[in-house]
Amino acid sequence: MIPDENFIQVPGVPGPTKEEIRCLVMCKAQLSKSDVVVDVGCGSGGITVESALRARKVYAIDRNPEAVKLTQQNLKKHEISGNVQLLKGDALEVLDELKSFDVLLVGGSNGDLPLIISLGYEKLKKAGKIVVSSILLETRVEAVDTFKKLGMEPEIVEVFIAKGKLMSRGTMMMGRNPVTIISAVKHSE
Amino acid sequence: MIPDENFIQVPGVPGPTKEEIRCLVMCKAQLSKSDVVVDVGCGSGGITVESALRARKVYAIDRNPEAVKLTQQNLKKHEISGNVQLLKGDALEVLDELKSFDVLLVGGSNGDLPLIISLGYEKLKKAGKIVVSSILLETRVEAVDTFKKLGMEPEIVEVFIAKGKLMSRGTMMMGRNPVTIISAVKHSE
Amino acid sequence: MIPDENFIQVPGVPGPTKEEIRCLVMCKAQLSKSDVVVDVGCGSGGITVESALRARKVYAIDRNPEAVKLTQQNLKKHEISGNVQLLKGDALEVLDELKSFDVLLVGGSNGDLPLIISLGYEKLKKAGKIVVSSILLETRVEAVDTFKKLGMEPEIVEVFIAKGKLMSRGTMMMGRNPVTIISAVKHSE
Amino acid sequence: MIPDENFIQVPGVPGPTKEEIRCLVMCKAQLSKSDVVVDVGCGSGGITVESALRARKVYAIDRNPEAVKLTQQNLKKHEISGNVQLLKGDALEVLDELKSFDVLLVGGSNGDLPLIISLGYEKLKKAGKIVVSSILLETRVEAVDTFKKLGMEPEIVEVFIAKGKLMSRGTMMMGRNPVTIISAVKHSE
Repeated sequence: MIPDENFIQVPGVPGPTKEEIRCLVMCKAQLSKSDVVVDVGCGSGGITVESALRARKVYAIDRNPEAVKLTQQNLKKHEISGNVQLLKGDALEVLDELKSFDVLLVGGSNGDLPLIISLGYEKLKKAGKIVVSSILLETRVEAVDTFKKLGMEPEIVEVFIAKGKLMSRGTMMMGRNPVTIISAVKHSE
Repeated sequence: MIPDENFIQVPGVPGPTKEEIRCLVMCKAQLSKSDVVVDVGCGSGGITVESALRARKVYAIDRNPEAVKLTQQNLKKHEISGNVQLLKGDALEVLDELKSFDVLLVGGSNGDLPLIISLGYEKLKKAGKIVVSSILLETRVEAVDTFKKLGMEPEIVEVFIAKGKLMSRGTMMMGRNPVTIISAVKHSE
Repeated sequence: MIPDENFIQVPGVPGPTKEEIRCLVMCKAQLSKSDVVVDVGCGSGGITVESALRARKVYAIDRNPEAVKLTQQNLKKHEISGNVQLLKGDALEVLDELKSFDVLLVGGSNGDLPLIISLGYEKLKKAGKIVVSSILLETRVEAVDTFKKLGMEPEIVEVFIAKGKLMSRGTMMMGRNPVTIISAVKHSE
Repeated sequence: MIPDENFIQVPGVPGPTKEEIRCLVMCKAQLSKSDVVVDVGCGSGGITVESALRARKVYAIDRNPEAVKLTQQNLKKHEISGNVQLLKGDALEVLDELKSFDVLLVGGSNGDLPLIISLGYEKLKKAGKIVVSSILLETRVEAVDTFKKLGMEPEIVEVFIAKGKLMSRGTMMMGRNPVTIISAVKHSE
């Protein structure tokens, strides 16, 4: 996994998703070299970069032009080219134009999470996966509810991480914001 | 419990101990109106103020003159006077001069935790309590080891707190640094 | 705070609320000797007992007759009598019959949390408090949403506790289920 | 990552390491197809299986014959053969007989953690990694201290996980025991 500090960061664009959370999202997504991935709310591009290293094709979407630009910079920094398409715009509109894909990763949803999951589900190939990272109390429930409505069985993992900081007087534990990862697989019909 | 923002804070002095941790320290300390309390490493005075509201007498110790001054200011702000004695100096030296007490609270120990606990134990009345708040990996183990050497049975509680921040798009969970509270009671011989 | 093991427990009745969570609920409730408290979903009676030790009067409600019986037993064990009234029944129906009170504590809500909070709010005295303990993703959001609709500003505290178990080879940290405490104060109009 | 329930489990043998922790250990280990890995305290074989799927060769060590047997069964269940050597015995003795390797993973250490890390360090190739999973307060500090003595810079990640359980009344969050992952890289001299 790429260390957090190896990503270019700019004020005003969230992310990159912390290393341990990227790691767990990748574990739940189980990307393979043949997968087509959609990354909604790409922010700084942390998940986009990790996905691009593991999948065939990544569509990275963000409505914030600064985020799209920063993701572009982080792709370049990690020497990724060719298999990522950056799409500035509203997630629902962009998703609507995409063909089918294997994995939908949702980091930011701007209040449209249920619709993003539902639309994503329609476009998802059989045995495809949806993985949502939630930092809000509300989106956790929206994800669980939407997955259940779609007949998918969500797996919910809340992750609380503290990292040790080596100081002269000892190892200080620094807490991170908890993240909840909600994921589900589209069963073959 | 007093809200965190009701304490005066200054850069360079740690604390005040967060409300929820103060609450749990007070629960473990079970102060009564007749208790004499020693607060080692009083910092901003969060624990000192809470103790003074519940006990007969509080000795608050800190080697940092800024901490002693800030604790004084916070005592004044919360209209506490008369039952707190502020003692600037090295915890071991100051403890050595004190007579017996009912409860020893240790927030900061400057590398002397085992000695502070051991010396405190000697001065502790029967059925007295020692409550250590630890933010370092190392001091957790020092506290457990020292309590065991003294024949005390430590109770260990690691506390990970996240607080919700109301934002327009939902409730964002903000993680705090984990704190471990190690406490023990001096059994009657 | 009363240790968990000092409560009688029976299979099929949840609780008692763990010591550290009881402690934090009591901190948020800030009970005084003149307060009238309602405890909805009293379960094993952990919160009922703690409230009875701090308030003037406690109404403890549970629809499960086993819970009411167990709460009764735990009140007796802790020698509390006179200031607790046990009420078997549906929370909404029982609340409807009660007069005004100072503090509403909700531990279990059987799917009626928004209505319980709303009805409780109506009966709550000015400057009264509502404190909800939530172990479900969904009730956290229901509590936050309902408080906001009522014009109350909720405070949200998620608590993750691990307790150390002393073993021959060291101190093993045992995780507890996270609990989220959502509380709010009724502002004077 | 392999789901927990896909591992054979037997009473008396710890593990398998939970999916999310296996995931994070694998992320920190960053195994490549050319790596030789040593897994100390293989238990149920969770980490052994994951390593075998990613590395060239895995030596799995446990002093408990039941653990060695169970790891064998789990390797067979996951159709892994050829690149794992199971070694029943004392970790230090077995490590002493091994030649150099790329990654040392330590799950269980039976009180010998500092010596296991030190001996492992000697046998570790340049740029090799050591990843320790700790469930005890004491081993976290032993790992950090030993890494520092060896001139390695430890990274410390404490992980608190809760998993959602779908119930009729909502999603109940079930806490896991916290695990701390301490890892370090052997710098080229």
